[in-house]
Amino acid sequence: MRGFSSRVAAFRESPTRKIDELRERLRRENRDVILLSTGQPSVPPPREVREALGELLKVDSMDLYGYTPSQGIYELRAAISEDLKKLGGLDVPPDQIVVTAGGQAAMFSTLATVVEQGDEVVVTDPTYFGYRPLLEYFGAVVKPLRTRIEEGFQPDPERLKTLVGRKTKAVVLVSPDNPTGRILNREVAKAVADLAQDYDFWIITDEAYKTLIYEGEHVYFYKLAPEHTISINTFSKDPAIPGWRLGYVYGPKDVVQKVKLANEEMVYCPPSFAQRMVAIYLRSEARTRYIREVVEVYRHKRDVALAAVKRYIPEAKFVPPSGSMFIFVDLSRYIVDGEEFAKVLLEKHGVATVPGSYFSEVYKAALRISFVTETTERIEEGIRRIGEALSAT
Amino acid sequence: MRGFSSRVAAFRESPTRKIDELRERLRRENRDVILLSTGQPSVPPPREVREALGELLKVDSMDLYGYTPSQGIYELRAAISEDLKKLGGLDVPPDQIVVTAGGQAAMFSTLATVVEQGDEVVVTDPTYFGYRPLLEYFGAVVKPLRTRIEEGFQPDPERLKTLVGRKTKAVVLVSPDNPTGRILNREVAKAVADLAQDYDFWIITDEAYKTLIYEGEHVYFYKLAPEHTISINTFSKDPAIPGWRLGYVYGPKDVVQKVKLANEEMVYCPPSFAQRMVAIYLRSEARTRYIREVVEVYRHKRDVALAAVKRYIPEAKFVPPSGSMFIFVDLSRYIVDGEEFAKVLLEKHGVATVPGSYFSEVYKAALRISFVTETTERIEEGIRRIGEALSAT
Repeated sequence: MRGFSSRVAAFRESPTRKIDELRERLRRENRDVILLSTGQPSVPPPREVREALGELLKVDSMDLYGYTPSQGIYELRAAISEDLKKLGGLDVPPDQIVVTAGGQAAMFSTLATVVEQGDEVVVTDPTYFGYRPLLEYFGAVVKPLRTRIEEGFQPDPERLKTLVGRKTKAVVLVSPDNPTGRILNREVAKAVADLAQDYDFWIITDEAYKTLIYEGEHVYFYKLAPEHTISINTFSKDPAIPGWRLGYVYGPKDVVQKVKLANEEMVYCPPSFAQRMVAIYLRSEARTRYIREVVEVYRHKRDVALAAVKRYIPEAKFVPPSGSMFIFVDLSRYIVDGEEFAKVLLEKHGVATVPGSYFSEVYKAALRISFVTETTERIEEGIRRIGEALSAT
Repeated sequence: MRGFSSRVAAFRESPTRKIDELRERLRRENRDVILLSTGQPSVPPPREVREALGELLKVDSMDLYGYTPSQGIYELRAAISEDLKKLGGLDVPPDQIVVTAGGQAAMFSTLATVVEQGDEVVVTDPTYFGYRPLLEYFGAVVKPLRTRIEEGFQPDPERLKTLVGRKTKAVVLVSPDNPTGRILNREVAKAVADLAQDYDFWIITDEAYKTLIYEGEHVYFYKLAPEHTISINTFSKDPAIPGWRLGYVYGPKDVVQKVKLANEEMVYCPPSFAQRMVAIYLRSEARTRYIREVVEVYRHKRDVALAAVKRYIPEAKFVPPSGSMFIFVDLSRYIVDGEEFAKVLLEKHGVATVPGSYFSEVYKAALRISFVTETTERIEEGIRRIGEALSAT
């Protein structure tokens, strides 16, 4: 009998995809849309890296086109290992790193590896919308750890303690966080690491934005609890190749071996061209300069966005993001339903954002505003229109 | 409690990967190995296509680097639609095509979409080793459909009839087949299509090698039973970019929509750079010329390999492959255990092959010999060494 697996019911169109489709329709109608919805970077990878790649395409051999080891080419894993040393003083040997077909594949293969039907997994609320559907697909019971805007979205270790127990398989923490831009405090991270050791659960630390930091410092769980830490990473943000699909997972060797096998079944190997690109990038002179410049560009855009929010949406509540690409603005003094408002905003005012309900069961009157994709002028104009739309409701 | 999902136990190191690792060790020991194990093409993609890509890398915009729709860029899906029309006279509109991160991702997402725990799925024996672990992972009960060397590895529709029933979710058929190189007879395909309609199961038709045909003609199930056909495809073989990870699935619109969602959760979108490349390739002047040339190169290599098998392994039984990249040689007149023999062959004689046990529960004394990766001289030498090793056993 034809038909589908009931498990795929957990798969819904991702929120940003839904917005992309609306946007696509508006584009066909020749309507300009200001994109405050996407985490798509605005600065392409360094020119010299792209040129080096262009040269490789001229070579008449299969070298650039063939399969790679499913764990990723050694050269790239060695470059990542060196990079983690430089960035955070971490000692992660290449055999504790598995390259994946992007951050999403890193998440999918990690959760496929660790989550058993019925396991409890703690996830902060709000946090990145990518985790919940995957956890449901793999049969986890999701335990939301509420974080509060008044506490700068820092998780409260005491609250966490009430959620963990014998059935806890993992705690997922995104830092810098998407959508809040919050960077985990060292003390909070320390408390989580201690709990992980006491209760013996995995810390799944999503470090997608670890090099996009405007104030403060990134906390590496690997330094606090190496045996309990599985880290999710992406090259989508740095060096800005989201479409090329490359990321990595690092952690204990037995986890990495299993994630490798999961990846092998999913995609056989990570994309080779992107691997070559990032291996060149990470070891290039451009690496440090590029990311420093990008952070300055984004910091400036963030400041423009923050000023615009204060000016045009004076009753909005928010925590200035210390990292990532987003401001999460609570509009509960203006509206109740962010999803409805985001739709009106897009269709009537030509501004795409992501409503808070995609990240939170609590902050449903919020919007996530990306400050990286558009120019400063358009970011300001977009936020002005949000204020205008709020006055009209 | 830390630990792993029991479901990942279905994931084992792929056979070719295991061989790759042995090979890697021999390479470190500076020992030359003749590669008759891999389906890696030997002719890189057309130069003009690579040059066009190189030009795109010079452009200072995010255009080449950004996310794409998770179904794949429209331009590529339109090019695939035109290509299917040219190749087989098929009418598959772009919205019935979903681009994936390679053939493996096409398999994974398709099986994730259709297979429910306890479903029965018929798979020929021998066939590609990639299906069984995925089917087990998704909880299917595998029903092997034995095919016989004496019957040219054509499945017997009467035998198939005894295997299908109320619980049959799908029948998987690879044609041209890996490892046997068998192309399905039109009559057999017609009988399978009729059964699919009678019993209402999916035909999962793996068309990875559809443009690598030396004699005969590829049968498109989509023409026989469009509502029951889900087709798995890859660009790894044509235009020879296995490492870049690009493939596609076509079939009924509701299946394609669900496969798209599965892909979104697995990898978010297929690699954009490879999408651009193949969109250029399929619509280029080079397309027809390139694949015609490649087929001639491989046909010549196949003929060299066949002659060498007859000369050096006179008691080997085989069916000359009409398509694909492989000859499947039954060595049961010489040996019992192909796995053990393949190991000796690699370690003592420097020739990598894949033993029959990875494809079959029956043909355990067989070897799969790839005739595309190496030069004709080395193919001949490799087969000579196989004969030599057999004499020594």
